[in-house]
Amino acid sequence: MLNHCVRRAFTLKTSQSRTAAHLRLNRGRCSASWSEDLDEVRTLLQLCLDRHYISRGQANAELFQRGMSCSYGPLGMELRRNLLEQWWLSVTRSTAQVFGINTLSSSKDRETDRAGQLRMVESENLKQIFEQQELSKEQIIQEVQMLLQRSPSVRTNLLQGALEQFVPSLELVNTKLPFGLAETGLCFPSSDGSGCPAEVTQTSVVWFCSPRTSSQWLDHWTRQRLKWWRKFALSPSDFSSCDIPEEELVVAASRGVRITYNFPWGQEPLETLCSRGDAELLQTHKGARSKLQCRNGRKTVPHVVSVTGNMDRGLMAFMSNSLQLLKREDGKQRLQQRKVLKLHPVLAPVKVALDLGRGATVELRQVCEGLLQDFMEAKISAWPGYLETMPTSMEQLNAKYDEMGVLFTVVISENTLESGLLQVRSRDTTIKETMHISEIKNFVSRYISAADKI
Amino acid sequence: MLNHCVRRAFTLKTSQSRTAAHLRLNRGRCSASWSEDLDEVRTLLQLCLDRHYISRGQANAELFQRGMSCSYGPLGMELRRNLLEQWWLSVTRSTAQVFGINTLSSSKDRETDRAGQLRMVESENLKQIFEQQELSKEQIIQEVQMLLQRSPSVRTNLLQGALEQFVPSLELVNTKLPFGLAETGLCFPSSDGSGCPAEVTQTSVVWFCSPRTSSQWLDHWTRQRLKWWRKFALSPSDFSSCDIPEEELVVAASRGVRITYNFPWGQEPLETLCSRGDAELLQTHKGARSKLQCRNGRKTVPHVVSVTGNMDRGLMAFMSNSLQLLKREDGKQRLQQRKVLKLHPVLAPVKVALDLGRGATVELRQVCEGLLQDFMEAKISAWPGYLETMPTSMEQLNAKYDEMGVLFTVVISENTLESGLLQVRSRDTTIKETMHISEIKNFVSRYISAADKI
Repeated sequence: MLNHCVRRAFTLKTSQSRTAAHLRLNRGRCSASWSEDLDEVRTLLQLCLDRHYISRGQANAELFQRGMSCSYGPLGMELRRNLLEQWWLSVTRSTAQVFGINTLSSSKDRETDRAGQLRMVESENLKQIFEQQELSKEQIIQEVQMLLQRSPSVRTNLLQGALEQFVPSLELVNTKLPFGLAETGLCFPSSDGSGCPAEVTQTSVVWFCSPRTSSQWLDHWTRQRLKWWRKFALSPSDFSSCDIPEEELVVAASRGVRITYNFPWGQEPLETLCSRGDAELLQTHKGARSKLQCRNGRKTVPHVVSVTGNMDRGLMAFMSNSLQLLKREDGKQRLQQRKVLKLHPVLAPVKVALDLGRGATVELRQVCEGLLQDFMEAKISAWPGYLETMPTSMEQLNAKYDEMGVLFTVVISENTLESGLLQVRSRDTTIKETMHISEIKNFVSRYISAADKI
Repeated sequence: MLNHCVRRAFTLKTSQSRTAAHLRLNRGRCSASWSEDLDEVRTLLQLCLDRHYISRGQANAELFQRGMSCSYGPLGMELRRNLLEQWWLSVTRSTAQVFGINTLSSSKDRETDRAGQLRMVESENLKQIFEQQELSKEQIIQEVQMLLQRSPSVRTNLLQGALEQFVPSLELVNTKLPFGLAETGLCFPSSDGSGCPAEVTQTSVVWFCSPRTSSQWLDHWTRQRLKWWRKFALSPSDFSSCDIPEEELVVAASRGVRITYNFPWGQEPLETLCSRGDAELLQTHKGARSKLQCRNGRKTVPHVVSVTGNMDRGLMAFMSNSLQLLKREDGKQRLQQRKVLKLHPVLAPVKVALDLGRGATVELRQVCEGLLQDFMEAKISAWPGYLETMPTSMEQLNAKYDEMGVLFTVVISENTLESGLLQVRSRDTTIKETMHISEIKNFVSRYISAADKI
């Protein structure tokens, strides 16, 4: 639950009624640092807009802040891709027994609980009902209700789809436990009452195991997932896990864990893990126990452990976690703030920026284009800074790339034409190195895989 | 438009009323080969089900056949991932000036044409209206219509989202043309009247260029896209392009091209390219010409070339294209049909299957597990065939893997423990080679990248 103070952080320059907002913060900071937190949030959101992580618009920024799917700009889009790719690899490649699936986002005949409240209705069909002059009020209501029942409901999570796919998946594993079904996709969790459904990019592993091991598996997945979040963090301790209080558990669950991120405005859940028993699985398959039984010593109906993440909020957590604000004096002794988005090398949407130094522009551009092609073929995302025609100082350029989270800035100059040497600046150390043009691609590639393996 | 004969191919063992169905086929085959085509379709669909490309269920198979998004099994899911990844790399990495974006699938205040007919309605809100006893029939109709207007409409394509992102993207390119915005995502194109909206995984490049070059860019993108489809095809000539007849063009378009695939039941469009002028861009931005002007010689409002693909149908096209049916005699001189899914190495969902030969099971399994880990770390998807506990002959196993489209089958046996040598069978040549265990990962990896570069 994002509180209003965060929205205010974005919309207002000065903040009023601090006390009320402060009470809602659970970080336990003092008032002075609370105001710093607000600044931090404001800076982060402004950077997300300026550097094309998210698209402009107040409504869009609010969606983003609330941990909902929003309209992402090119950098946000690439970060989201990288995040989802890493999630996918980590769950499907870490164990042989997690299979990917893809289910439909809407369903006509899915067994739904309250979840099925949001329905896709053809407005044309409604219009046709209303045009039937002869219908009475009661008849109209009845017709509309029937139309609604025929209309597909939109999924609120990925659990139901996975439960439905349990039986066909048994074939894949020779009815042997444990195994899991993984999926990522858009979900439409219950709206906030404004009548506007929210979209969320969910990730889901539904893990089927023997009843007596379900608690151990919940612990296993919690460790795995927390390790994953922390792997990409600049400050890993901001990611933590905590048990879900009994009164907040979903009906079917016997135990649950939340992985949360410590945002400047408080803890927010990124991922929820639940040991859910067999009730929902039985219900989905209409109690047909014989279809559900698995071989593990004796025949049993498996228990379900669900691992559900919100990757939109995850994206914001990594943005928030990796933004470093550094104060320093410039040449004229004015205090300046340096903003560096230290995203993990694997997640950073742009790995290299290519820019022109002094020299014959036409030839230098050709070198840049060749190098860009090299990077692209190696699937290393590169930024064609050399296409920029507005004059900018190298200092301004570096500041911009730091805010974009670009790992390395490569400058091609006259020197490159003569000796093949170029200059590489690192985002994290700000150190500039000279390197031969033939080495740069492998250098960047090795740097990223080294970071991936830590 | 998929015709009923295809559905029949799947549902009926014998086909009736052939003539009517035959007339709808535009492949110009004779009746005898038409019946072969039906067999081919039936075989393909059965294989998709048996080998976990799509989930079971008549309704699901029908969605798949109609080129709609359906519930995919693990292999279909992985194929879809590979396909979308290749599409993404080809459009965003081939030129510096295509940026990825991600827009919302539903929108409250989007400028919609007829497209906005499908709306997401909270059924709870409708119920509340109906519960107000005091309302007259007219009042109820009015309330429902107002609710409908407040409810978000679901996108039918990705064009509108990209047009909206044109202005913010200008900053990225210094208002310089040409450039493009790429996106993939679920869309809900107009339903077939059954009241059930269909989901389609669309791909979209919206290309902004100067008015006088738009026709050349249309040709450029057609060449590029056709080349892409053919790159992954076993029989490239089944993919072709043709001009869209003037009367079938969307209103705004001056010229259009379709890339089609020659399915056994006829041509179906996979991708549509249109030169659309500036009308829709102007309409989206409410005619604010000054905001839309770009620098290219003189200030102009760009023209739009749209490139819209259906990756669900694309997936089926590659499945259909890569299935080879080979007749051969078995040892007892019975005629057998060998089915091989010769998916391109880059697209194949499983690259390697790992299986046990003769020998001490426990040790061999450990070797398999280590090798599986190696493959997974190298991001090469491997199938843990060694976990299979049902006895199967090597011949049956190979037949199964050929139907799955597995590139290589690796057999670990006693010999491997002694000398490190294992046996590798190729799907495409059926030749078995002996190789050292330390070489296999690089061998497969090199094989795939070599195929990628052709």
